[in-house]
Parts: sequence; C-alpha cells; structure tokens
Amino acid sequence: MKAKVSIIMGSTSDLPVMEKAAKVLNDFKIPFEINALSAHRTPEEVEKFAKGAFDRGIKAIIAGAGMAAHLPGVIAAMTPIPVIGVPINASLDGMDALLSIAQMPPGIPVATVGINGAMNAGILAGQILAIGDSELQKNVIAFKESLKEKMVKANEELASIKYEFKTN
Amino acid sequence: MKAKVSIIMGSTSDLPVMEKAAKVLNDFKIPFEINALSAHRTPEEVEKFAKGAFDRGIKAIIAGAGMAAHLPGVIAAMTPIPVIGVPINASLDGMDALLSIAQMPPGIPVATVGINGAMNAGILAGQILAIGDSELQKNVIAFKESLKEKMVKANEELASIKYEFKTN
Amino acid sequence: MKAKVSIIMGSTSDLPVMEKAAKVLNDFKIPFEINALSAHRTPEEVEKFAKGAFDRGIKAIIAGAGMAAHLPGVIAAMTPIPVIGVPINASLDGMDALLSIAQMPPGIPVATVGINGAMNAGILAGQILAIGDSELQKNVIAFKESLKEKMVKANEELASIKYEFKTN
Amino acid sequence: MKAKVSIIMGSTSDLPVMEKAAKVLNDFKIPFEINALSAHRTPEEVEKFAKGAFDRGIKAIIAGAGMAAHLPGVIAAMTPIPVIGVPINASLDGMDALLSIAQMPPGIPVATVGINGAMNAGILAGQILAIGDSELQKNVIAFKESLKEKMVKANEELASIKYEFKTN
Amino acid sequence: MKAKVSIIMGSTSDLPVMEKAAKVLNDFKIPFEINALSAHRTPEEVEKFAKGAFDRGIKAIIAGAGMAAHLPGVIAAMTPIPVIGVPINASLDGMDALLSIAQMPPGIPVATVGINGAMNAGILAGQILAIGDSELQKNVIAFKESLKEKMVKANEELASIKYEFKTN
Amino acid sequence: MKAKVSIIMGSTSDLPVMEKAAKVLNDFKIPFEINALSAHRTPEEVEKFAKGAFDRGIKAIIAGAGMAAHLPGVIAAMTPIPVIGVPINASLDGMDALLSIAQMPPGIPVATVGINGAMNAGILAGQILAIGDSELQKNVIAFKESLKEKMVKANEELASIKYEFKTN
Amino acid sequence: MKAKVSIIMGSTSDLPVMEKAAKVLNDFKIPFEINALSAHRTPEEVEKFAKGAFDRGIKAIIAGAGMAAHLPGVIAAMTPIPVIGVPINASLDGMDALLSIAQMPPGIPVATVGINGAMNAGILAGQILAIGDSELQKNVIAFKESLKEKMVKANEELASIKYEFKTN
Amino acid sequence: MKAKVSIIMGSTSDLPVMEKAAKVLNDFKIPFEINALSAHRTPEEVEKFAKGAFDRGIKAIIAGAGMAAHLPGVIAAMTPIPVIGVPINASLDGMDALLSIAQMPPGIPVATVGINGAMNAGILAGQILAIGDSELQKNVIAFKESLKEKMVKANEELASIKYEFKTN
Repeated sequence: MKAKVSIIMGSTSDLPVMEKAAKVLNDFKIPFEINALSAHRTPEEVEKFAKGAFDRGIKAIIAGAGMAAHLPGVIAAMTPIPVIGVPINASLDGMDALLSIAQMPPGIPVATVGINGAMNAGILAGQILAIGDSELQKNVIAFKESLKEKMVKANEELASIKYEFKTN
Repeated sequence: MKAKVSIIMGSTSDLPVMEKAAKVLNDFKIPFEINALSAHRTPEEVEKFAKGAFDRGIKAIIAGAGMAAHLPGVIAAMTPIPVIGVPINASLDGMDALLSIAQMPPGIPVATVGINGAMNAGILAGQILAIGDSELQKNVIAFKESLKEKMVKANEELASIKYEFKTN
Repeated sequence: MKAKVSIIMGSTSDLPVMEKAAKVLNDFKIPFEINALSAHRTPEEVEKFAKGAFDRGIKAIIAGAGMAAHLPGVIAAMTPIPVIGVPINASLDGMDALLSIAQMPPGIPVATVGINGAMNAGILAGQILAIGDSELQKNVIAFKESLKEKMVKANEELASIKYEFKTN
Repeated sequence: MKAKVSIIMGSTSDLPVMEKAAKVLNDFKIPFEINALSAHRTPEEVEKFAKGAFDRGIKAIIAGAGMAAHLPGVIAAMTPIPVIGVPINASLDGMDALLSIAQMPPGIPVATVGINGAMNAGILAGQILAIGDSELQKNVIAFKESLKEKMVKANEELASIKYEFKTN
Repeated sequence: MKAKVSIIMGSTSDLPVMEKAAKVLNDFKIPFEINALSAHRTPEEVEKFAKGAFDRGIKAIIAGAGMAAHLPGVIAAMTPIPVIGVPINASLDGMDALLSIAQMPPGIPVATVGINGAMNAGILAGQILAIGDSELQKNVIAFKESLKEKMVKANEELASIKYEFKTN
Repeated sequence: MKAKVSIIMGSTSDLPVMEKAAKVLNDFKIPFEINALSAHRTPEEVEKFAKGAFDRGIKAIIAGAGMAAHLPGVIAAMTPIPVIGVPINASLDGMDALLSIAQMPPGIPVATVGINGAMNAGILAGQILAIGDSELQKNVIAFKESLKEKMVKANEELASIKYEFKTN
Repeated sequence: MKAKVSIIMGSTSDLPVMEKAAKVLNDFKIPFEINALSAHRTPEEVEKFAKGAFDRGIKAIIAGAGMAAHLPGVIAAMTPIPVIGVPINASLDGMDALLSIAQMPPGIPVATVGINGAMNAGILAGQILAIGDSELQKNVIAFKESLKEKMVKANEELASIKYEFKTN
Repeated sequence: MKAKVSIIMGSTSDLPVMEKAAKVLNDFKIPFEINALSAHRTPEEVEKFAKGAFDRGIKAIIAGAGMAAHLPGVIAAMTPIPVIGVPINASLDGMDALLSIAQMPPGIPVATVGINGAMNAGILAGQILAIGDSELQKNVIAFKESLKEKMVKANEELASIKYEFKTN
C-alpha cells in the first residue's frame, strides 16, 4: 500500500488537531502517511520531502502549522502537488497562522482551510483525489450525504424542548 | 471543447481580479467557462449550477466573492467537486471575505487562496487537474520553473543600483 | 397555535445561546418554532424552509450561526421575511461570524445583532411583530420599562459598598 | 402623507451613504422623513425625537453614524420601534462604527446592517413594514425578484470575454 | 462631605473592575459617589445625572462600560465636566468597548484609559482635581513616587534567581 | 502671558492634526505653547520638559504621536500633570498609536482621545482647566451649546432634498 | 564575570516568560544580568541603565513588556546597543505589546521577536554576540543543529500511530 | 571590498522600501550587497545563499517581504547569522507580513522591525556590527546624536506659528 496523501505537521503538539485529517482519509480508505517536518528546524528534510513527493506517488499534501506558519507555503514552493494548509491556533486565536498560510504571493498557491480545520483538509484531499477515482468519488458523495444525518438528530433534540408558545 | 474548470463570480465588478484565473487556465490550455452567479441574488441558479457541475464534467470550481462572501461555501455545500474560494477586497481590506470563505464548518471545505488571489486560484486548479493528466502536469511543472525567471530579471535590476559601499 | 417567528440554528451546540431568543419570545407570548438547518449540510432543507416560511405565516426569522456564518444570509436570499442574524462565538471571539452575517451585499439585508446576542434577536423580533399588533406592543413597552428595575437593584447593591470617602 | 420610516444621520457628510436608504424607500412608495440628529451634539433633540416617534406613527427608524457610533443605540433605548443601524465608514474602515452599533447590551437591540449599507437598511425597513401591508409585500417580493436582472446582464457581459480555451 | 468625583457603571458585573477607581480616590481622600446608570436601560436617569452633576459640585466623572459602550460618551454630551471612560472587557477582549469610548466625534471628548483600566481612571481624576488643590497635588506626587517601590521589590526578587552565568 | 497648556508633537508632519488642538485652546482664550519633542530622538529634552512643566505653571499637556506612540506615556511617567494623548494615524489606520497610548499600565494614566482627535484633546484640556476657572467654564458651556448649530444647518440642508415620498 | 547581555522586565509577573531568555543565555555560557525597570514607574533608573550599559560592557539588551509596551523603545532611544524587544501577552492576546514594540519610528529600531518569544530573544542575543566570538558561534551552530532532534522524536511518536490506511 | 551585510528582497517592487536600508548602510560605510531571492520562487537559491552567507563573511542579513512573508524566517532557519526582517505593506496594511515575520516558533528568531521599516533595519544592522567595531560604533553614536537635529528644526518651524494665545 503506497501513500497517496501526506500529512505533515511541525510539532506533535499539533497532533490533536491534525489527526482529524488522518481519520477522514482513513474513512475514505485513502492510503496516507504522517510525518513531522519543520520549515525552520529541518529545512533540508522539508526540501527532500517536497521534491520527492511527486515521484513517490503522493497526490496531495496536508500541512498544518501555527504562528508564523511557513511550512505549507515552503512545501508548495518545491512541488507541483496541491498543498492544503491548516492554520493551527497556537497564538492570536490562529489569525497569524491563517494569514501566514493564505496570503501566499502570486505563483505558489496554498489551498487554505479554516483555523484548526484539519477535518476539512482531509475532506478536501478526498475531493481532489476523487476527480480521477470514481470509487472514491462515491465515498465523497456518500460522505456529503451523511452530513445531513447530524441535522436530523439535531432536530429531534430541538423537538424535545418545551415552551408554552413553542409550536413544534 | 467541454469546460473542465468553472469560474464563478458574484458581480462583474470582480472581473478585473477574477480574470487572472482565466488567464492562467488559458495558459495551461485547460478549457474553462466563466459565469456570474450570486448566492443571494440567484440562489436557484447557484443550486442548478452546483448540482449539475459534476455531471457536466467540471473538475474544479473557482468562486470569487467579496464582503460576506457566501458564494464559494454555498456552492461547496452542493457539489463533491473541489471549490477554490477567492476572497475579493470589497471592504475591510478583504478581511471579511477571507473569514467568510476560509472559516467553513467541519464537513464542507473551501480551498481558500489569498485576498484577490485569483491567479493562485487558477494555478491551484491546474495543480488539481494535473493529478490525473500527465500532459498538464508538465505544464504545471514548467510554470513553476518559469517563476524563477522573474528573479533573474530582478537581480539584474538590483545589480544596476550603485552605492559607494555596495559590493555587487 | 401557528408559529409567527422561526428560530433556526446550525447545530445544537448553539442552543445555549439561541435559547435566549426562545425565552424572550415565550415571555412576549409570541408563538414560535425552533429548527436546526444548515446552509452547508442541508441546503435543500434550507431552501424549502426559506421559500415556504412566508406562506406558513412566519413573520420574522431568527438565524444563528458561527464561523463562516452563511445561514442567515442564505435564508434572507430566499424570503421576503425580515431575517435577524445572531453571530455565534465559535472561533476568533465571534468576529468571523459577525462579519459573515453583517457584511451582506446590497439587496439582501440581514438584521444583525451582537455576538451571541440571541436575547436581543428575540426582542427585535418582538418589536417588529408589534408594529401591527397593539397587544404585543404593550408587552414590548412593558419589557423596555422593566429594564430599569435591574438598575434599581444595582444601585441598592452599590449603596451598600463602604469607603471612608464614599458619600452615597 | 405621514412618514412611516424616519431616516436619521449625525452629519450631512453621511448623506451620500444614507441617501441610498431614501431612494429605496421612495421606490417602495413608503413615506419617510430625513432628519439630522446627534447623540452627542443634540441629545435633547434625540430624546424628543425618539420618544415621540411611536405616537407620530413611525414604524421603523434608520439611523446612520460613524466612529463611536452611539446614535442608533441611544435612539433604540428610548423607543419600542425597531431601529436599523448603519455603520458609516469614517475611520478604521468602519470597524469602530460596526462594533459600536452591533455590540448592544442585552435588552436594547439594534438591527445592524453592513458598513455603509444604507441601501440594505432601506430594504430591511421595507421588509419590516410589509409584514402588515400586503401591497408593500408585493413590492418587496418584486424587488427581490429584480435582483436577478443584474446577474443576467453580468452573464451577458462575461459571455463577451474571449479566450482560446473559454468554452462559453 | 460632598462628592467631587462620580463613578458610574452600567452593571454591578463591572464592579470588580470599577472598584479599583474607588480605592484610588479613597486613598487620595477625594470624596466620591458610586452609581449604576445605563445609557440604554435608564436614559432619563443618565440625563438627570449628567445635567445635574455640575451644579452638585462634581468635578470629574468616571464611567465604565463594556461592548457597545455608550455610557461615557452619552454623559459627556450632557455636561461640561471632564468624563473619564473605562472600556470594560465584556467581549472581543474589550476592543469593542475601547473603540466605542475612544472614537468620539469632534466636539465631545471622553478621556479614555486602557481596557479595564479603572485604577488609572481614579488616578487621572486625582490628577485633574489636583490642578486646583495643592494638598491633593502632594498626594498625587507622593503616589507617583510610591510606584517606584514596587520596582525595588521586583529587583530584590530577581536578585534571588540563580544561574551559573547570571552576574547579579 | 504664561502658557497653561502645552501641546507636544513628535514631528511637524503631525502639525495638520495637532493644530486643531491649538485652535480650540485659542478660541477658549487659554494661553498655550507648542513644542516638538520625541520620546526617541530627544529623550533628555522630554525629561527636562516633563519634570519642569508643573513648576512652569502648565496645567495640562496634550501630546500627539503615531506608530509605537510612546511620547504621551513617557511624559505622563514624569509629571503629576494630566496628559492627554492623541493617537496619530501614521500606519495601520492609527490602531498601533491608539493601543500604544491607551493601554498604559496601572499607575500612569494617559487621557486618550480618538485617532487624530486633536480637536477633542483641546476641548478636554479646556474642560479640565475650567474646573477651577469659572470664566473659562462659561466658554466651555457656550462651546458645547454651539455644537447644536451645526445640526440646525444640517437639518436645513436635509430639508431641501426632494423625493416623492419624502414628507419633510 | 561581567554581564554581556542585560535582561530587563517591567514586572516580576513577566518573569515566567522572560526567564526563557535567561535559560538560553546560560546554556550559551553568556554572562548576563536580570533587572526590573519600568519606563513609567522608574524612568530615571531606565535612563541611568540605558546610558551606562555601553560603558559597562553590555553588548545586547533584552527588554520585555506588555500592554503599551514602551520599555524596549525607550531604552533603545538612549543607547547604541542593539535592543531586543519581547512583547508580553498581558491583554489583547499581546497584540498591543507587539505593535507598541515593533512599530518604532525611523531612527530607533527595536529588534522585535514574537509575542512571549523570550526564548527567541535569548537566541538572537547569542547570534549577535557570536559575530565577534568564534567559540560562541560554535555553540549557536550546535544549538541550531540540535533543533532537529525534536523532529526525530516527533517522527518516532507519529510512527506509533496506527490507522488501517496509514502507510508509515 | 567584501560585503558584511546582505540585503534581500522578494521582488523589485519592494525596492523603494528596502533601499532605505541600503542608504543607511552606505552612510555607515558598511560594505553590503543587494540581491533578489524568493522563498517561493527560488527556494534553492535561498538555501544556497543562506548556507553560504556565514562563510562569505556576512555578519547580518536584512530580508524584506510582504503578504505571507516567509523569506526572513526561511533564511533564519538556515544560517547562524542574525536575520533582520522587514514586513512590507503589500496587503492588509502590512499586518499579514508583520505576523508572518515576527511570530516565529521557538528556536529560530527573526529580528523584526516595523512595517516598511527598512531604514530601521539598516540602523539595527549597524548597531549589531558595531559591537565588535569601535570605528563603526562612533558612527552609530553620531547617528543617534544627529536624530536630535530634526527636532531642532521642527521646533523652529513650530515657533513660527502664530496664535493670539500662543506663548512661544
């Protein structure tokens, strides 16, 4: 089994957030790998990773980082593979990470999701890979459909609330 | 020729920004379409578009919007296709649009690029489509390589600046 | 008893905030309903709800949402009924939700209250319905009058604080 | 003809923004008045206005103000009539006005629209008055319908753009 | 004993912050009063208070408020007495209150201190009253001098920290 | 004629803003002086000024500064005289200056006015000096009264605007 | 042993943050001192310190401060020694301190590190002193090298996470 | 003549800002070089530059960048030389660049100056190099002294302003 998506984080302290991406990929049955890399601590490892990813068959990279979050952009600079950036809230409510990831200069896009939005990063990776994989596409469509279930349960819960003038 | 990427904007006032995405797709030789849709003015059209895009063969959607920028998220809710959101600076330096697009709830990602970053949206669409298209992949790699040329020119320009204590 | 106001939220996690609107409406003796709808998880339900609300006799809609809070604006796009938006603090102190709700483009207003301001949303709905309902108008006026009582109690409490140079 | 909506502003420098509300009300054939009042310069006039508005038959008040924008909230404190607040961009991109208007304490809501959103304030007033006025309701519905026309024109304009790989 | 400074707050929930102003005034032996008033709940009481303060011999007013903090500005509009505004952190880290108090329009200043800065408000009132009161002036100067003592203690504490390469 | 108020600025580029304070003081017939001092360029001059101001009979100091605006706080640290700080918009819409001036630590208040609010600084100085000067107090009260005139003119201007459904 | 770096803080409440700088300097075997000084409480001491530091052989100053953080800039104004500023998070997530330290006017730089970034301040001081000290330079290079170790451990930890579709 | 300071920028559009650093270095008679490098367009060149700088005798690096400004941090990760970061205002008033440069993670400091603060970056480089260069130290001290001259001129200019109640 060869990884198709690579999840990267700068520190294991980001794992509680980033593991949500792993869970989604696993549910989608997409082979993936998880590695710790740091744009600042191990730049050579980042370079080796980024430049080799395409030839290793990686189709999408999910990179999470906090504060001055350079990791997603630095990886994006060294690979043609789409890079999904997850701003981690480590300071300033995550606003520094959001801007450090989203505001990339012309030429090197990072597909940015919301602050701590690793679950969405996993889904987005699934949507991207599904373009050329009709089996996975079914999973993605089924997943989207399943989102409605939470609302059914929510409505059941709301139905149980009682007020004199509540009509439903 | 059938469109593979769909560029959507809420108003022709966004065209000067969004046309940069069109130009990139054209350079990548990716067939694309451009349409105006509004999450608020024409919600039915948005729904029809979003639900039909997959069957029409669209592989990625680029949606730009300003202010309370709901268009990318609303489209993303109704299609399995990856949606790339471009926050347009129409007020508050574009910060309202950036947050309205990036901060999507769990389940419905939007691949957000920087404020007014339509060129990067086009490149990202190219990177996504290139996953299953080795010809396009070459174009993407060549494009990435071409980014260096601007730096060569920049260095030539900087070389011509003269100061007594400048050494290069 | 037919509902005149409809309270909508995207998740039952918003219930502790949104229930304050329910309580106010109940105190005003305005029949209301509570439902969970999501602009992103159940867009078709949102559409059905928004388009049918007017014919069902709904006079005002209170919609709460957090993060990239599209729900109030999306509903407002599909009904002539006034929509009151409640930004929920789910991230960034609620600033993302405030901007996603308030900064609507020309043509589709959302009557935005403060962050987590569901009580005020209920009062505003009461004020709006009271325009054509003189009995309710009395309740609204009485409610406004009752706000002073809290200040009477506050002053009693402050009167009990002792300092050598405090004169009252 | 007696005014049903009252437009208030703190300074004639706000007129270019606030006149958009007047235009909408005029199009809706809703009688309205325009007055200048200042929470800080003429607090007695504000009080007289706010307390008398209900008895004069005013059904909704639109109040615009910039900077530390107290006018809408101060009026709302003295009347049961719904008050629509328009934050005017006079400094800090209008963020100070938005917060000064939207972040009202529990008990005294202001229906806040977007920064410089006077057109939306006029529409919202129309939606509120239409609750008890089926003739006006038709105008509101027709207005909402008319919003689509702008998109038709936008699509015509976009159709005229030519690229080699543009398909529509 | 007649109050020379009046401390005003909108809610007893602000008391833990505002009491720091009371403590300073007491230490300065300046007679003061504390009252609860709300620009929104009891506007008439605010007006009565503000208009009567000058004739009652009040020389400075300290007004604290949170969120859309109108109280200091509304009082300042109705009295020639200097008004010191204390932004209370009740939401958004107090940024909404800071802007709602500081950003007053030309003509009606509020002397704004930092967020939750009630102690400084008390000192500022002392400094203002000391202009015409040489006895109080001595207290103010002595207070300023006493601020150094905390630093002496801090240095003693820092002196006790041991590191191999720490020299002092 | 001895100066009672001292206006300080860090650069003559701040003069267009700060001169509004001078104009107000002149209208109030309060003797004043204007000097350029910089917390960073001429710290010794600042110290000499701040420590000598009280003995020279200065009753209030108005200090304007932009960016990391230290001048008002540094002066306040070295004098018992009340210091009024004017945040100048030199970058970031003046937000950096507002925070650098308002957010003073406990013990050393600066009476902060709005961004570029030098006119209000002048008025505030007048209000402070008027505490012990009944002649000046009359001027302050008259000034406050005169603020209403602008509203009379504004209403005349608004009265001249014509719409079919405008009633006044 | 004479101190080469001086760590300054405004309050012992900043010690838990600032001690990280001490630890780094100690690890680098750079002699240092720690003192408490306040731009506002003890301006004379600050001046004495700043003006004497150069002659005492201090090569770099690390100054931490929160809120309207004037200490680093005020010291920088009175010495030719490089000053490293550490914004302390005492309010507003530290944004006020960051702006008050970083946004210095032309002529008086402060080398600003991130919010609560005292460890980085210590490292930066080490890098600066290492310019003329080849022994220290080795320590700095070794320290940079050691940063990679944390990543090795992180990868070991990540390797132990198990998912069905995890490939590494 | 070998360069001791290296000025780096990501684009010649940053030259009008960054040239201020060059001018200061030239005035200090410090040999310097200017090059264009991009963390995203030419990552290999950045690596080659950063890793070779120390051996080439570079003592300090000044790196300017806008938006998601990764250049200074990426360079700092690959050299023991102190890196001075200049946030360039290219969007969001430069706030994105400030956060992307200042908020570096523990281990890799960047000495950040204010937005567009290239002149200060040049001075800071001078201060750092002066530690081991007594001739340069004299220049730095003389430069600091010269800052006062601007204030002398400013005061002359202010002295010429005439008001009836201006005393100086």
